[in-house]
Amino acid sequence: SAQSQKTNNPFQTKVDSILKLMTLEEKLGQLNLPSSGDITTGASQSSNVAKNIEEGKVGGLFNIKTVAKIREVQQIAMEKSRMKIPLLFGMDVIHGYETTFPIPLGLSATWDMDMIEKTARMAAQEATADGINWTFSPMTDISRDPRWGRVSEGSGEDVYLGSRIAEAMVKGYQGDDLTLNNTMLACVKHFALYGAPDAGRDYNTVDMSKIRMYNEYLGPYKAAVDAGVASVMAAFNEIDGVPATGNKWLLTDLLREDWGFNGFVVTDYTGIEEMMYHGIGDFQEVSARALKAGSDMDMVSEGFLTTLKKSYEEGKVSMADIDTAVGRILTAKYQIGLFDDPYKYCDLDRPAKEIFTPENRAFARKVSSESMVLLKNDNNLLPLKKSGTIALIGPLSNDALNMAGTWSVATKQEKSSPLLEGLKTVAGKNVTILQAKGSNVDYDLDYEKRVTMLGKEIPRDGRTDKQLLDEALAIAKKADVIVAALGETAEMSGESSSVTNLQIPQVQKDLLNALLKTGKPVVLVLFTGRPLAITEEDENVPAILNVWFPGSEAGLAISDVLFGDVNPSGKLTATFPMNVGQVPIFYNHKNTGRPLGNKEGKFEKFKSNYLDVRNEPLYPFGYGLSYTTFAYGNLKLTSNTLNANGTIEASVEVTNSGTYDGKEVVQLYIRDVVGSVTRPVKELKGFQKVLLKKGETKTISFSISEEDLKFYNNSLEFKAEPGTFQVFIGTDSNAELMQEFELK
Amino acid sequence: SAQSQKTNNPFQTKVDSILKLMTLEEKLGQLNLPSSGDITTGASQSSNVAKNIEEGKVGGLFNIKTVAKIREVQQIAMEKSRMKIPLLFGMDVIHGYETTFPIPLGLSATWDMDMIEKTARMAAQEATADGINWTFSPMTDISRDPRWGRVSEGSGEDVYLGSRIAEAMVKGYQGDDLTLNNTMLACVKHFALYGAPDAGRDYNTVDMSKIRMYNEYLGPYKAAVDAGVASVMAAFNEIDGVPATGNKWLLTDLLREDWGFNGFVVTDYTGIEEMMYHGIGDFQEVSARALKAGSDMDMVSEGFLTTLKKSYEEGKVSMADIDTAVGRILTAKYQIGLFDDPYKYCDLDRPAKEIFTPENRAFARKVSSESMVLLKNDNNLLPLKKSGTIALIGPLSNDALNMAGTWSVATKQEKSSPLLEGLKTVAGKNVTILQAKGSNVDYDLDYEKRVTMLGKEIPRDGRTDKQLLDEALAIAKKADVIVAALGETAEMSGESSSVTNLQIPQVQKDLLNALLKTGKPVVLVLFTGRPLAITEEDENVPAILNVWFPGSEAGLAISDVLFGDVNPSGKLTATFPMNVGQVPIFYNHKNTGRPLGNKEGKFEKFKSNYLDVRNEPLYPFGYGLSYTTFAYGNLKLTSNTLNANGTIEASVEVTNSGTYDGKEVVQLYIRDVVGSVTRPVKELKGFQKVLLKKGETKTISFSISEEDLKFYNNSLEFKAEPGTFQVFIGTDSNAELMQEFELK
Repeated sequence: SAQSQKTNNPFQTKVDSILKLMTLEEKLGQLNLPSSGDITTGASQSSNVAKNIEEGKVGGLFNIKTVAKIREVQQIAMEKSRMKIPLLFGMDVIHGYETTFPIPLGLSATWDMDMIEKTARMAAQEATADGINWTFSPMTDISRDPRWGRVSEGSGEDVYLGSRIAEAMVKGYQGDDLTLNNTMLACVKHFALYGAPDAGRDYNTVDMSKIRMYNEYLGPYKAAVDAGVASVMAAFNEIDGVPATGNKWLLTDLLREDWGFNGFVVTDYTGIEEMMYHGIGDFQEVSARALKAGSDMDMVSEGFLTTLKKSYEEGKVSMADIDTAVGRILTAKYQIGLFDDPYKYCDLDRPAKEIFTPENRAFARKVSSESMVLLKNDNNLLPLKKSGTIALIGPLSNDALNMAGTWSVATKQEKSSPLLEGLKTVAGKNVTILQAKGSNVDYDLDYEKRVTMLGKEIPRDGRTDKQLLDEALAIAKKADVIVAALGETAEMSGESSSVTNLQIPQVQKDLLNALLKTGKPVVLVLFTGRPLAITEEDENVPAILNVWFPGSEAGLAISDVLFGDVNPSGKLTATFPMNVGQVPIFYNHKNTGRPLGNKEGKFEKFKSNYLDVRNEPLYPFGYGLSYTTFAYGNLKLTSNTLNANGTIEASVEVTNSGTYDGKEVVQLYIRDVVGSVTRPVKELKGFQKVLLKKGETKTISFSISEEDLKFYNNSLEFKAEPGTFQVFIGTDSNAELMQEFELK
Repeated sequence: SAQSQKTNNPFQTKVDSILKLMTLEEKLGQLNLPSSGDITTGASQSSNVAKNIEEGKVGGLFNIKTVAKIREVQQIAMEKSRMKIPLLFGMDVIHGYETTFPIPLGLSATWDMDMIEKTARMAAQEATADGINWTFSPMTDISRDPRWGRVSEGSGEDVYLGSRIAEAMVKGYQGDDLTLNNTMLACVKHFALYGAPDAGRDYNTVDMSKIRMYNEYLGPYKAAVDAGVASVMAAFNEIDGVPATGNKWLLTDLLREDWGFNGFVVTDYTGIEEMMYHGIGDFQEVSARALKAGSDMDMVSEGFLTTLKKSYEEGKVSMADIDTAVGRILTAKYQIGLFDDPYKYCDLDRPAKEIFTPENRAFARKVSSESMVLLKNDNNLLPLKKSGTIALIGPLSNDALNMAGTWSVATKQEKSSPLLEGLKTVAGKNVTILQAKGSNVDYDLDYEKRVTMLGKEIPRDGRTDKQLLDEALAIAKKADVIVAALGETAEMSGESSSVTNLQIPQVQKDLLNALLKTGKPVVLVLFTGRPLAITEEDENVPAILNVWFPGSEAGLAISDVLFGDVNPSGKLTATFPMNVGQVPIFYNHKNTGRPLGNKEGKFEKFKSNYLDVRNEPLYPFGYGLSYTTFAYGNLKLTSNTLNANGTIEASVEVTNSGTYDGKEVVQLYIRDVVGSVTRPVKELKGFQKVLLKKGETKTISFSISEEDLKFYNNSLEFKAEPGTFQVFIGTDSNAELMQEFELK
């Protein structure tokens, strides 16, 4: 309960003593989180925000960067405001800071929890060196809809994998000790269900049953809370008809009472104001409703700052409501030691030593190469030889600005490694590399403008489509192999970048088809922030490497993989559909009462299938090839009976049966054959990423306990039910090796 | 409660006395509803089903047709079974019997409740004349997903309109007196939510919150119950993880306890057996679960017949459970007077006098013409003149078998009126009509087979695509106007006919484009069972008449409209999307917190919209043109305040401002501006179909009371909330004339 959270708070006495000294206005100021706005280094004292800070009307700032600027701003709070309460400094540190890692969807494809944790650790190191002590990450929104642009910022469709990643990220940002100057407050978002908007349109209405919510969407948020995340961001969407920001069931009953969260809740950008558009009250009413629901800090709306006093006077909120929220903000400031040293993150010497260092960039390069997913590789076209002539063609073939992908506000865009440069560096001297743009991003200039915005420009080439194509075909003719760098630009996915067409833009498809017609072997290097419907490309292109948006070291990392210096090991964490009409499509669906009777996808009347496309996706969850091959065999269980509180081991032999050393993500899925409610056809319940030398065989074991079999039943009780379970282990979610056991 | 339902049952004493005489096996027999299987007239006595009837193992039969055959079968029950309990005879009488009306989605587009009721009345007249006393209609499943093939069988996306239609259908089938020999038991289906499968794939998992369920989906089922529907069919899908067939909350708590339903519940085809595939138990368990949940009659599975005895002996179901179900079946048989006269529907003289009569067909022709929706009519290309030369082209231009559309099991397919014949009849002697097929249905023969099945064949033309096209272009050149009869075949929609591509088949698109290139004016006569994404056609074709599948009198009815003998007045009851990626798209959505700021659909970053297509659909709910035009003005409310228990009148002046007499569906929408939960941007709350002579103005009035403003809040209480409401009246769901009032 709220009371027990208070009594467990080691800083409560201090918080209470400060609260006693504060005016109502100052309290409301602590709940106010404006954007940094017009602050510029050296002139911060004269900004509007500065005036508000002086008056005690600001609890923290976000969207502010550089230690010098932050130090100046903190000084205003410490020297000019009456209460001298230090400010929080927040930022969207999402997938790295200046050293930028792959977009989160790509990062998740590494299936490497240590590596993911380390990316968050490194991001915290860099961000704190620059003065920042709070990141709005991790985003743990499960999504099954690739139309939604923000799939790029999440960890895919699976609640188990998403939960492990959420834990790793929180641990990475917050470390073991939040009082250190290189750890920072994490913020799990967007609580909750933001990844399931109707029709995949960002900010649209979300709706689902409680049982789906609990079993299929809430897990990763809860995992972050269990991992000790310091803050939670309320989602834009409604849940059961009530916007998350003002949803007491969500922010208090579930989050605090059931899950025991004791940090603070921040709204998303203008989340309070937006409740007026949702249609549940005027500004005063929605602000009061947000506070009473459990929102503690108001990002940008200034609803708390400007209306809560009136609501207090009218008895619509109590001083206890306000004190509870302020207490949570102050507690966070105590937690990270800001009251002891408001300038602890403001060491002017740190940035040069700790940010965007060669070491950090080397690590980013490694992470990027591990995130890439080899989707197709006919006749071992890849890896490329380090000899001969390569024609590198495509609108993304020599671009730096898009490499970091969406939501990388601190990235050094212009310093990102373009593919052309990376290819030259990694190829060495025996390779001739020719390059041409081949096409613009899109036939439609207006569309191209919309998807190359926010600094992620790709300059429109003034030549005609034909001129661009002719140039490309001319160099293609001189090459032994064509590398086509195509797909999305960074801003084609991400926030507010929902689409209804999941294909590569037509001009790029036309370019690709023209390149294929040359008869030269073509490798498609696919840039994307979402699962794309590349069904035609899969049919026609011999090799496809999905590189997502790889981050700062994009060009080098892609080249490492293309030339085989790194053997690709990424696995998809989101299903790639055959077409947009299959959406939502995900591996852990229910069986239905009329499942299709054949695996080939042949149409069967009066079964659950489509007339015009198979049920199976283009690439399933967990899918990804390697330059080597892996053979699975000898799946065994230590027992065919599992007793409550017992465990059984499932083991499988995995052999590297190909000609390269390589890493494999061994995946364990479980099916609960009969339930009191319908259960998915399988669910990921374990995975291990293992290195196998060529020819090597390893026995990989997983422990299974009753805990792994629990789910929320129709009464929302989290329980395992006795009966038969099937264990599948394999290379992706189509894993077929199977053994059964009984839970007693 | 169940007890009060029993005490209200006038037949309970009779039922109880019969129950006392029955063996357990005979009781289970009453719960068994097999398909008629191998019965043929004159040989019914020797069929397997006959044997079961003799043994008392059958409560009713379905899929049986003709009075002679039914009389024979009833005789077996009455003469050879021990208990001599008459059988129910059910059939899918969905949109007419032999006289076939438009598919239900088309029928709903008439917005004419009297007419819809009369179609059901006529269907009952014909079906009962043929021996049938129970229809599995109306289907009242709200659907917002045109991928789902069965949208064809419902009344579209709106809960208010769907409820009115549900009432009209029940009233039509059941009349005022179920003891008459020309009324029949109706069955509302598929209870519940069957129209909302994930990804639009038939039989797939359904999931939504309770608040969406109550406000947006359940209304029409409840309206049917309130109208006294005699039976309810359980849906295939799960609700909150439990298949409807075994869902006690649904079939008992909601349906009987809350809504007071006191008829009987039948499963859908193999619904009980399918629960094994859903994964909630073995055959015995799912059968017991179905009974205990409230399923009374088992269609096809024989789970009740073969396992309930064992479950009874093991204490898993009680004799009271069984007696309750049997009692409901027996009560239905009493209700329709079967115990008084088991042969009351078996008058061998009726069929010739009452089925597929010229009068009935004339009415069907009228209904069909009223269902058609004029989607576009540039420069008044329509109506066609009754002179000159018309080139009628397309795979549906001279077809009879597909005209009745899907789920028309009793239709006289071969007697349906093809368009060519209709056009000739209506055009008269001054028009020369040339006809060519132009293309096959689809380029892909395999696909064509799948969508021209179940007797709805269109013979594949052995000529090449080019030969077919050349022939069409040759006649097109000779014509003054081209009528292109294209779109879906009957089985491209309907049960198990879900698709991921909402466009017209490519070969037909290519044909249409070739016809457009001739420069001749082209009228597209669009056959479809679902909203299609005809965005390209809307751009390029000057006139588009959506005819759905018009029923027995298709060709005549289409021609009536094409030549202007009937001025089209149909209005869409389901939104037509721009593309499949917009799905689900519907008019009564929520506003969200970030609504787009412009009506033109211009992209706005950080608002809820897509990068690649506008938010607005191609054609909105309620849309449909006329050969005349209607002007709306002077929207007035009798008061700007509505008190509880009071009413206010909203009136608007509608003027026929064009040059034809015509009917207009005047639509009233209400927006609840602020709610305790988010409310839709507007909701249909009234409509009137009015005839206006050219130049005529009428004042149309609607009464608004508190009842119209009620909705289910977060606690699922059905209440109106004080505050501001906006009233919109207009020609479709984009109605812009607006006035506000306050509910006190």
